[in-house]
Amino acid sequence: MPTATHPPLQRGASQPLAGQLAERYAQRIRERLLLPGARLPSVRDCARQHGVSPHTVVAAYDQLQAAGLLEARRQRGFFVRETRPAAATRLPHAAAAAAPRQAPMDATALIRGMFEADAARSPGLGTLPADWLDPALLQSALRRLHDAQAHAVQLSYGDPSGDERLRNALGQRLADLGIHAGPAQILTTNGATHALDLIIRSQLQPGDAVLVDDPGWAIMFARLTQAGIRLLPVPRGARGPDLDVLAALAAQHGPRAYLTVSVLHNPTGHSLDLAGAHRLLRLADEHDFFIVEDDSYGFLASEHAPRLAALDGLRRVTYVSGFSKVLTPAWRVGYLATAPERLRALTDTKLLDGLTSSPVLERAVALCLEQGRLRRHAQRLRERLATARQRVASLATRQGFSWAAPPDGLFGWLNVGVDTERLAQPLLDAGWLTAPGALFSATRRPGPLMRINMATSLDPAFWRALRACVDDLRGRATTP
Amino acid sequence: MPTATHPPLQRGASQPLAGQLAERYAQRIRERLLLPGARLPSVRDCARQHGVSPHTVVAAYDQLQAAGLLEARRQRGFFVRETRPAAATRLPHAAAAAAPRQAPMDATALIRGMFEADAARSPGLGTLPADWLDPALLQSALRRLHDAQAHAVQLSYGDPSGDERLRNALGQRLADLGIHAGPAQILTTNGATHALDLIIRSQLQPGDAVLVDDPGWAIMFARLTQAGIRLLPVPRGARGPDLDVLAALAAQHGPRAYLTVSVLHNPTGHSLDLAGAHRLLRLADEHDFFIVEDDSYGFLASEHAPRLAALDGLRRVTYVSGFSKVLTPAWRVGYLATAPERLRALTDTKLLDGLTSSPVLERAVALCLEQGRLRRHAQRLRERLATARQRVASLATRQGFSWAAPPDGLFGWLNVGVDTERLAQPLLDAGWLTAPGALFSATRRPGPLMRINMATSLDPAFWRALRACVDDLRGRATTP
Repeated sequence: MPTATHPPLQRGASQPLAGQLAERYAQRIRERLLLPGARLPSVRDCARQHGVSPHTVVAAYDQLQAAGLLEARRQRGFFVRETRPAAATRLPHAAAAAAPRQAPMDATALIRGMFEADAARSPGLGTLPADWLDPALLQSALRRLHDAQAHAVQLSYGDPSGDERLRNALGQRLADLGIHAGPAQILTTNGATHALDLIIRSQLQPGDAVLVDDPGWAIMFARLTQAGIRLLPVPRGARGPDLDVLAALAAQHGPRAYLTVSVLHNPTGHSLDLAGAHRLLRLADEHDFFIVEDDSYGFLASEHAPRLAALDGLRRVTYVSGFSKVLTPAWRVGYLATAPERLRALTDTKLLDGLTSSPVLERAVALCLEQGRLRRHAQRLRERLATARQRVASLATRQGFSWAAPPDGLFGWLNVGVDTERLAQPLLDAGWLTAPGALFSATRRPGPLMRINMATSLDPAFWRALRACVDDLRGRATTP
Repeated sequence: MPTATHPPLQRGASQPLAGQLAERYAQRIRERLLLPGARLPSVRDCARQHGVSPHTVVAAYDQLQAAGLLEARRQRGFFVRETRPAAATRLPHAAAAAAPRQAPMDATALIRGMFEADAARSPGLGTLPADWLDPALLQSALRRLHDAQAHAVQLSYGDPSGDERLRNALGQRLADLGIHAGPAQILTTNGATHALDLIIRSQLQPGDAVLVDDPGWAIMFARLTQAGIRLLPVPRGARGPDLDVLAALAAQHGPRAYLTVSVLHNPTGHSLDLAGAHRLLRLADEHDFFIVEDDSYGFLASEHAPRLAALDGLRRVTYVSGFSKVLTPAWRVGYLATAPERLRALTDTKLLDGLTSSPVLERAVALCLEQGRLRRHAQRLRERLATARQRVASLATRQGFSWAAPPDGLFGWLNVGVDTERLAQPLLDAGWLTAPGALFSATRRPGPLMRINMATSLDPAFWRALRACVDDLRGRATTP
């Protein structure tokens, strides 16, 4: 390929550098200056040639892959694809659907991958696979909506605070967790993510500093960053969040809030113990920040696992949860519980962003909760997950891998000893969608960790493939 | 009541002035310095005493009413309520539910009222009443979700772009309107309001100027203002938006966008004609702004009413619509159609704010569309509305009222000759929830106009009450 002339890319132009670089290669491919099968320069070489960061090159190649112009070949690099000319004439993002599978390069790409993934081949999945859910429970609830009593629910916006019957049932659920919140302290949302979004919009301002778990949830980092929030990462490992670091960050930056998954943390599986929860709440008092407790995985944990909201009585803590991880992600029902004085602004924000959440699906969740069937279903899931965790642990051990934290709930945080971001593409080429640790890092730092879903990593073939790809990458690192 | 000492309210304090003022009166009531039955100063006097705007006083009295401490008596003013001491100890917003009904004082109050309203007593309602909808159509669609084919939809997040079957059906619907958009140009949302929210978040920045219809939709003004957008109101009357004013505003302020309801505009009922649409699009080209066409009432209009998106081919126009006005507001399904290059950012914004919208309800809407039943239902609604409009027009004429624009679709824009904001409370005391014109004004300007819902204003008793309250207010104005 021609490397002689590289007119400089335009920094500060309306099109980002990656887009300019992608367009430059796309043009060469269109003009047949790069023929099908031609190998592109390595990321490092390309970055050097064009005076940009390797990250920019990765993004550009990513766009070209999405447009169907390039393909990644395992361990070998990027090649111009064999395509019909018509398909190669532009760089539409919409073409991504037709492009070959690619390893997720950012948070939204991971999430997009999650929605398309074949669960049985997705050890990186963030939810329970469909065949662990209970369609009969869902159908029975939807059928009961046709009753005369539920009839009116079908025809109106519903209460902006959420279906009252659901809020009553949620009050019961919260009482089981030791959290005392009447229906007037509860606001329903379109899933837990929407609850977090409302909190960001109604209680935080651009420029605010916010403590987050690191590793933590990529979507949350992306959303906070989009809102102009400064992230203060609190390292979280096998023993939970490092509260000494948290205290130092709080003293230095005066954060407004701490967003945390206290129980069955994603991705480490760690749950706060009572002493940790108590100390954390004292730090919140001392440094005057509020806490958002994301309990999205709460149904997969014991009701006795201490929730921050239970200790605090919803004074500094706003509690967030939902039903995607236990009932179905398809209903998009979540909620938050908080102090009454915070609730009105949150409700108004919800009104402005979409009026109400669906009273139909909220009533259906209420029916599941009221029957006690959801509780029994969750109990069965917990037992099945415990068995799966044992089996996955044994598969990992057999291939010589170890955990960075004791697996619990849905996730294990695996240490494979090589950069898991580099590992993702060869694994995907072999048919396995994984979740590299960099996706959970607030600073996108690559590293040797990856998140393993205990319900979708039961196939010994995955562990053999992982072993082979890790060894291959190690071998390449030692033989230049 | 004691008026001797009025320590100044704290401007710039963390609590807004209205809250401070409300708390001051609440304290006097708690301390029995103001006894039940005592009359509070008029809004004007109170504003003068405390050196605040009348608006602040109205907001403070509003809060006190919501807390159950005050009541408004028709034509007489505000009085301390007879309450048990326990109820009077704090000012919780949550107490609003138990408080007496109050006229809506702001956009969210109007919307809240809308959700609680008895439709038959709500000439100000923004939707069709429940008994105009077709529950059999909804139930049949939900039942068919249990089919084997739809089974998988119940168990996953679904596609972030929206259920593909719905997007295909929407492509058909758009084709009927002359808008050519494939499924890859369509993004589903939690209702049309959510679609507008995504556009604001992904395509506008704080400080941007945006053209809006005035009168227009209060929620949209509130949402844009919340996002730090400067509103450029374009006067809209019987002949539609004043395009000369629009051109002058565009030349002076360089707006990013124009948000407009082109067909069956809320509240005037006006629809753009072809010449207006053409001129508007030329102005958009000339001044380089994009257009968001909110077609929320589209199913209540003829398919032949020209849509901006049809003329423009989704180049500058993003089209937004939903199903709350024709199918049910309870499902919260809306969508937008736009150029592919804008779609990816919108989809990512949707992902970050709540992952996906419910694939279950989206599939249900698809089933309604595919069967052609929704189209037939919409046709029946249009015929019934036409009859209702004739009857309402005759009731209005009989009481001597006239319209500011020829009623069409769901709404009429009535001129009653007195300030409709002042009129709202006595009408509410008489049991009628109305929508005063100030709620639709971008500057909250009071005036003699009000929005009339053609489906909920068929009771002659309402028109008699309106006549009586108007005459009463007129009489008071002439006899000091």
